[in-house]
Amino acid sequence: MTSLINGEVGSALASADRATQYGDAVFETIAVEHGQPLLWQRHCQRLQQGLLRLKLPAADETVLRSEAEELSSGVRQGVLKLLLTAGVGGRGYRRPDVPDCQRILSLHPYPDYPARFWTDGVVVRRCQMRLARQPALAGLKHGNRLEQVLARAEWTDAEISEGLMCDTEGMLIEGTMSNVFAVRDGILSTPALDQSGVAGIMRECVLDLAAELELPVRIVTAPLDVWLQADELFLTNSVIGLWPVRQVGVTPFRPGPVARQLQKCLSERRLAPSPAPPGTRSTTA
Amino acid sequence: MTSLINGEVGSALASADRATQYGDAVFETIAVEHGQPLLWQRHCQRLQQGLLRLKLPAADETVLRSEAEELSSGVRQGVLKLLLTAGVGGRGYRRPDVPDCQRILSLHPYPDYPARFWTDGVVVRRCQMRLARQPALAGLKHGNRLEQVLARAEWTDAEISEGLMCDTEGMLIEGTMSNVFAVRDGILSTPALDQSGVAGIMRECVLDLAAELELPVRIVTAPLDVWLQADELFLTNSVIGLWPVRQVGVTPFRPGPVARQLQKCLSERRLAPSPAPPGTRSTTA
Repeated sequence: MTSLINGEVGSALASADRATQYGDAVFETIAVEHGQPLLWQRHCQRLQQGLLRLKLPAADETVLRSEAEELSSGVRQGVLKLLLTAGVGGRGYRRPDVPDCQRILSLHPYPDYPARFWTDGVVVRRCQMRLARQPALAGLKHGNRLEQVLARAEWTDAEISEGLMCDTEGMLIEGTMSNVFAVRDGILSTPALDQSGVAGIMRECVLDLAAELELPVRIVTAPLDVWLQADELFLTNSVIGLWPVRQVGVTPFRPGPVARQLQKCLSERRLAPSPAPPGTRSTTA
Repeated sequence: MTSLINGEVGSALASADRATQYGDAVFETIAVEHGQPLLWQRHCQRLQQGLLRLKLPAADETVLRSEAEELSSGVRQGVLKLLLTAGVGGRGYRRPDVPDCQRILSLHPYPDYPARFWTDGVVVRRCQMRLARQPALAGLKHGNRLEQVLARAEWTDAEISEGLMCDTEGMLIEGTMSNVFAVRDGILSTPALDQSGVAGIMRECVLDLAAELELPVRIVTAPLDVWLQADELFLTNSVIGLWPVRQVGVTPFRPGPVARQLQKCLSERRLAPSPAPPGTRSTTA
């Protein structure tokens, strides 16, 4: 892992940083392919919206872009993380009047996912851990992620790729690291994120593609069991693009035509990384 | 500020620490008086409970105690913070099988609160920010504190010492940094913390003292307006001990006999720091 802290190569941050003390931060996780951070503009916009909603100063996009390109240069496939922290200072929960925000960009190897996750689909479980309803933070990719950490700690079985999370009222919201879509009778649905969850960039892309392809779309609040009646189920995030689901617990699914069509669009337009055949992955271009 | 990171004097932590990335940490804030961390045993117990509920390994209390004493030695009045992080590692939300937890102890000056906060009481406001209902995290002093940070960012008026927070259903839970008690018709009440809020060590002490003093106690879930009908209202935390409330918005209160009696007990038993007369505070013994 290589990281830039405020533009300098480094890996240490003040232990008094408010991100460390309170999770007072926002972040983005971005796929890098052939030296380019994918969907840069959308990630940047969401980062700025997150900073605004958390009442933190806007980030300098020119600087972010230049540092992102520096880290991504020559990388065939990787993952770039941007973390903007509220910085050191303020007694207790009170921030200083002018926060000294810290900018951390780090480049990570692309995860070693088998190509069959894209072709045959993934096995998914239901998480016990519930998501709280908090409209003030819903949709944001903020630094308070204990719910996801505890949900992800529920299983170690390497055959299970993701866990589905419901909110405290039992409504399906998302996966621990992905958004969820279902197709039933030709209608594409995804959970409403006004109370909980992260409004993923790949989710946004898929919704835009669906509009373009004239697929009817519904934003839905419904219990998990209703979602399991779908013809197709799939997961999205910026690193994986789109994974069909082939099993939730004991309920089987098949990758369907909508997932295939969307995968094709994402790949053709280079909005998501192309799955590499097993053994061919390398971090250099 | 002096800090020990895993026993060594230092102030830097890996930027990849899970506390910084996800708020994956627990902490304690402890008053120090005459070289002694107050209520050490209770703080240690809560820390261990927090680690257990977050599925992190237990901390070595002998090491913690020795480092806490090293930092507190010779300090007349101060604040000691213990932060236990989940450490570096794990791809995404998944922790490594054996987390490399980091131990950060830091000593801070005692805040410069005027003595009248203890004698005459403090002015308090209602926060707009609500607390989510999340039983899996309720009661814990964990590292996901954006709700408190955003609540504390609602005001800058130095005359206002604390903000009261309701949950998303409108029930009073706590202050941004304190627990709340009310007295009405001789009965002591404090909000239930099974859905949200931090189960404060000073709250626990006050409940124990109340049992000893044979004060009837109720744990209550009720909207803020019900609490404002109290005869007495007061706030507690480990650093302040007990502050009577003299005003919530436009509603006036008076420090009452129960607050006075509890303050006296806390002070006599050296469970809370004694308020120093203005101008006399010093950080050395």
